[in-house]
Amino acid sequence: MQILRTLSDLRQWRAAVPAGRTVGFIPTMGALHAGHMELIERGRKENDLAVVSIFVNPLQFGPTEDFTLYPRPFESDRELCERAGVDAVFAPEAGEFYAKDHATYCEVEGFDRFLCGASRPGHFRGVCTVVLKLFNLVQPHRAYFGKKDIQQALILRKMVTDLSLNLEMILVDTVREASGLALSSRNVYLSEGEKDRAVALFRALSKARALYLDGEKNAEKLKGILKAEIETSDPTRIDYVEIVSQARLDPVLSLEEPFVMAVAVFYGKTRLIDNFLLP
Amino acid sequence: MQILRTLSDLRQWRAAVPAGRTVGFIPTMGALHAGHMELIERGRKENDLAVVSIFVNPLQFGPTEDFTLYPRPFESDRELCERAGVDAVFAPEAGEFYAKDHATYCEVEGFDRFLCGASRPGHFRGVCTVVLKLFNLVQPHRAYFGKKDIQQALILRKMVTDLSLNLEMILVDTVREASGLALSSRNVYLSEGEKDRAVALFRALSKARALYLDGEKNAEKLKGILKAEIETSDPTRIDYVEIVSQARLDPVLSLEEPFVMAVAVFYGKTRLIDNFLLP
Repeated sequence: MQILRTLSDLRQWRAAVPAGRTVGFIPTMGALHAGHMELIERGRKENDLAVVSIFVNPLQFGPTEDFTLYPRPFESDRELCERAGVDAVFAPEAGEFYAKDHATYCEVEGFDRFLCGASRPGHFRGVCTVVLKLFNLVQPHRAYFGKKDIQQALILRKMVTDLSLNLEMILVDTVREASGLALSSRNVYLSEGEKDRAVALFRALSKARALYLDGEKNAEKLKGILKAEIETSDPTRIDYVEIVSQARLDPVLSLEEPFVMAVAVFYGKTRLIDNFLLP
Repeated sequence: MQILRTLSDLRQWRAAVPAGRTVGFIPTMGALHAGHMELIERGRKENDLAVVSIFVNPLQFGPTEDFTLYPRPFESDRELCERAGVDAVFAPEAGEFYAKDHATYCEVEGFDRFLCGASRPGHFRGVCTVVLKLFNLVQPHRAYFGKKDIQQALILRKMVTDLSLNLEMILVDTVREASGLALSSRNVYLSEGEKDRAVALFRALSKARALYLDGEKNAEKLKGILKAEIETSDPTRIDYVEIVSQARLDPVLSLEEPFVMAVAVFYGKTRLIDNFLLP
């Protein structure tokens, strides 16, 4: 497995891939867990070569967010990739990845008004920009994203379509603990007690889905159920409980088109997100 | 020469280019003149294959601008390309090029505050977005832009660098009539009298350059010279006379770094631009 530390390392590696061989790409911020490993496994199986990027992208963190605190266990990440049969890990320095005078940004307008976009201004612009630049460098045939960060996945899929990028976006199901808690690199911030309480997100989503499948088509009612169930877990703060269209990520009242039920909740200082796609 | 009318035509054409052969790309809005032909000639000479796009991009026109009026002489453009040895012309319909729900935009922040950006809000965002999408479709090795639209050329070059696009940007000198008037698709709007008066742009730039080369390093003085010379031609309105850095496109006072002297002037209803890069 190659460790590529600079843009020029990556460019050279990519240029040496023979024509006709496919490249699968898994962009990450590191702190790899079983959710990432699922993406990596798919990327490896479905392509001749698999590249993982590990880069904590400063552009997608707000000024009060956890950029410096964000876990960076590079050695164990490297080992996980090696054992998973990854061909190359791209782990650039932020100082080289973005030049001092970086000024170019990409965004999917309107898709960040709700859900996480509402409380994290500029976040998805940072995500689009980093992923677009990574795509240009890696030139993958397929790219893998987890459905846990559903707004990110749907925004990036829209960006790929709108800009006619020559790659296939693969969205992979959320990996969960036995309890139902969605895996996240931020789960390490949780105390044992908080972790137990946080299972309420999965419980609430499951309850609302059951009602929907039973015929409930009123979005406000489902949101009420979600909120009530989350509140039984004594959350520090509910950031949002939303039901939005998959196509536009804007709130829907009736549930006639494909939609996402999504929640973001603080336990202590840790903000967790989870969602179900329906139908 | 192939005429490609849909995104899928272009994708198929591009996929059939054998690995190892280079593609030169000349994006245009049609109404081709000798300036475009110079770009095409360079693209053809320096690459195995040359692709010209002809697309009047709605995203880069403001609501009061000449989008519907803009000349679209497709048959003569096609012939010019054919005679110049172009391999493929990509001429999509706006309705297919941008889906109805198109929402993705790219911009080079801060680079559109001055020059044409100041009076054409959103214009360069439209330019960046269309060119980025065209680059993704055509996947050229080299792309050719005229220095006449200098803000466009420098913004796009910055976008390519910032986003690590895998292509070389070639900026080609402005082609002029014997009088010095820079060629432009919009020159067809000019009456004979306006055309004569418009030569003042070239005369003013030449005069200011001569003074600079003689040792004048005060930007305000040069701007004064430019304005005074343009005013002798009885312009309908001077939109701007600016001296900006080549690196950031912001006004400079002293002329210690590479800079652009740029002017935009109305004669009748027609807005003309011209510039010199110095040193």
